[in-house]
Amino acid sequence: MEHDVFLRAALDEARQGLQEGGIPIGSVLVKDGRIIGRGRNRRVQQGDPMAHAEIDCLRQAGRVGRYEGTVLYSTLMPCYLCSGAVVQFRIPKVVVGESVNFAGAPHWLRAQGAQIVDLGDEACIGLMRGFIASNPRLWNEDIGV
Amino acid sequence: MEHDVFLRAALDEARQGLQEGGIPIGSVLVKDGRIIGRGRNRRVQQGDPMAHAEIDCLRQAGRVGRYEGTVLYSTLMPCYLCSGAVVQFRIPKVVVGESVNFAGAPHWLRAQGAQIVDLGDEACIGLMRGFIASNPRLWNEDIGV
Repeated sequence: MEHDVFLRAALDEARQGLQEGGIPIGSVLVKDGRIIGRGRNRRVQQGDPMAHAEIDCLRQAGRVGRYEGTVLYSTLMPCYLCSGAVVQFRIPKVVVGESVNFAGAPHWLRAQGAQIVDLGDEACIGLMRGFIASNPRLWNEDIGV
Repeated sequence: MEHDVFLRAALDEARQGLQEGGIPIGSVLVKDGRIIGRGRNRRVQQGDPMAHAEIDCLRQAGRVGRYEGTVLYSTLMPCYLCSGAVVQFRIPKVVVGESVNFAGAPHWLRAQGAQIVDLGDEACIGLMRGFIASNPRLWNEDIGV
């Protein structure tokens, strides 16, 4: 299944982030069946509160110009910061590993015209659940709580 | 007037961006009457489509943690990406130089609880108007049009 390959790539990014001491959320940007950007949450690694996984991924992808035909994958449902990027740059489709550990803003994204697919992936759920249980303060900082 | 000092600092950032060949939008983050972060749009300079002025400013401010008591200044009304940051991190107040050249999403920001002040500053309006007239494609790329 196509989703599996790209979600797995996002999950690889998340796991790499965890190994670096970071928050394990990963993201890839796909166009025409090809990964054109990949990133992970780097708040801890770079001391950058804007370096959410999806923002890091879109940064790595560079100046794509128009985002028609792109799909943004993330291991976790995007927050408002990352959802704002989706809305502003009209990324048409977002596929997420899960929304159990963070509900995000899928209703707002859909209302703004984005297609949202939630895969409910057990590996993504387990990775994030374990991280939050061990690092509640770091996680709360990441989402502004 | 307090706003003048900080808007002037944001405008200085915008002008520095223009000198670098970039898009002239600047931003500062203020807490307790002191600038704790400053930035400017660096899409061109860094090839980074996420480097909007407000995102660059919040990045430079580093891991502030909670944003209680902060005020985000920008020479231009924030787009959805930057508004998403305001909403997610609960930045309570946003002061903008103008919204003539870009309407942004002040209604959404207000609905989410942020206070928005629009100063209608002529220097900000003139700087951005001149830039857009000379660089329409670059500007459209910046806002995803």
